[in-house]
Amino acid sequence: MALAYDGAIQRLIDAFNKLPGIGPKGAQRIAFYLLSADEQEAAALADAITEVKAKVRFCDICGNVCETSPCPICSDPRRDHTLICVVEEPKDVMSIERTREYRGMYHVLGGAINPMANVGPSDLHIAGLLERLKDDSVKEIILALDPNIEGEATTTYLSRLISPLGIKVTRLASGLPVGSDLEYADEITLGRALAGRREA
Amino acid sequence: MALAYDGAIQRLIDAFNKLPGIGPKGAQRIAFYLLSADEQEAAALADAITEVKAKVRFCDICGNVCETSPCPICSDPRRDHTLICVVEEPKDVMSIERTREYRGMYHVLGGAINPMANVGPSDLHIAGLLERLKDDSVKEIILALDPNIEGEATTTYLSRLISPLGIKVTRLASGLPVGSDLEYADEITLGRALAGRREA
Repeated sequence: MALAYDGAIQRLIDAFNKLPGIGPKGAQRIAFYLLSADEQEAAALADAITEVKAKVRFCDICGNVCETSPCPICSDPRRDHTLICVVEEPKDVMSIERTREYRGMYHVLGGAINPMANVGPSDLHIAGLLERLKDDSVKEIILALDPNIEGEATTTYLSRLISPLGIKVTRLASGLPVGSDLEYADEITLGRALAGRREA
Repeated sequence: MALAYDGAIQRLIDAFNKLPGIGPKGAQRIAFYLLSADEQEAAALADAITEVKAKVRFCDICGNVCETSPCPICSDPRRDHTLICVVEEPKDVMSIERTREYRGMYHVLGGAINPMANVGPSDLHIAGLLERLKDDSVKEIILALDPNIEGEATTTYLSRLISPLGIKVTRLASGLPVGSDLEYADEITLGRALAGRREA
């Protein structure tokens, strides 16, 4: 009795099932979609996967993903090189760029301190960050880590490490998300919003 | 300002975003997963996509996807060749096989009659089905289409087409799903369950 698909289809379903956020039903749906898609679309996806592994590297300065090192942001003379925003992952750079509010540099740590997952400070790109602070050109470090336990631990660690160097260290404001409802805010967020209140 | 990723990454995100059930955030997550995955896993996915387009074809007899035609089910002498189960899609064959209750043949229509999407009887593999009925070896046709408007229309169409040939035409039972709650059954399903009641 055929309880699995014929070779190639099952291999494709299995390969998609390994990706984050794709379960067995989703993988099957994608496999049949690709089966009936035209040759070009399937080839474009296969090529994009191969290309990204061949071309994409990490910027030697900021650790962001890029095709040229230094990356376009690090090598942009119009941006403010005295300001460095420290983030966990390359996708966080994109989130901050989308605000169109920030014109400084970035530094991608590659994660956050997480003892449960055996990630300590030495596993993050912290040495590279300290290296960038040596020539005294940087005036402010913005710590933009995720507002969870790991992000808080990393923020505290970096703040204690960098403040003694005489560089201003700031962090993103905590508070109520825009468009949210006071009634449904959790007490920690609401507490932070109160503590961080500003003149209206 | 960099509002899109550098070339290759953005192309990979775009390619994944086109697949069914994958949105922009999911595509980004998969792209970064593949970036940090080892070479073999990424290559395996790219190869599986290319392989499926190169190898997979449709069975000349039943229309199911396969790598050899006739497919393993059509060429299996231990199965009951007097019984054909008509389904909409190749994945429906797998669903029925998983019940381990069916030992007959299949016929994959490639969809259902749907005037809203301009799919008429001539767009489905109905001619091939009639061809299979010509030598009088088939005793029963089981119509196993989806229990929705399109499936019902197709069931009615095929039933009227095949019954005059003197072949027994049956359809899957409608009723309450096993493990469900009578209270939450919709009235049409409950009506069908009543109409199709059996001696206990």
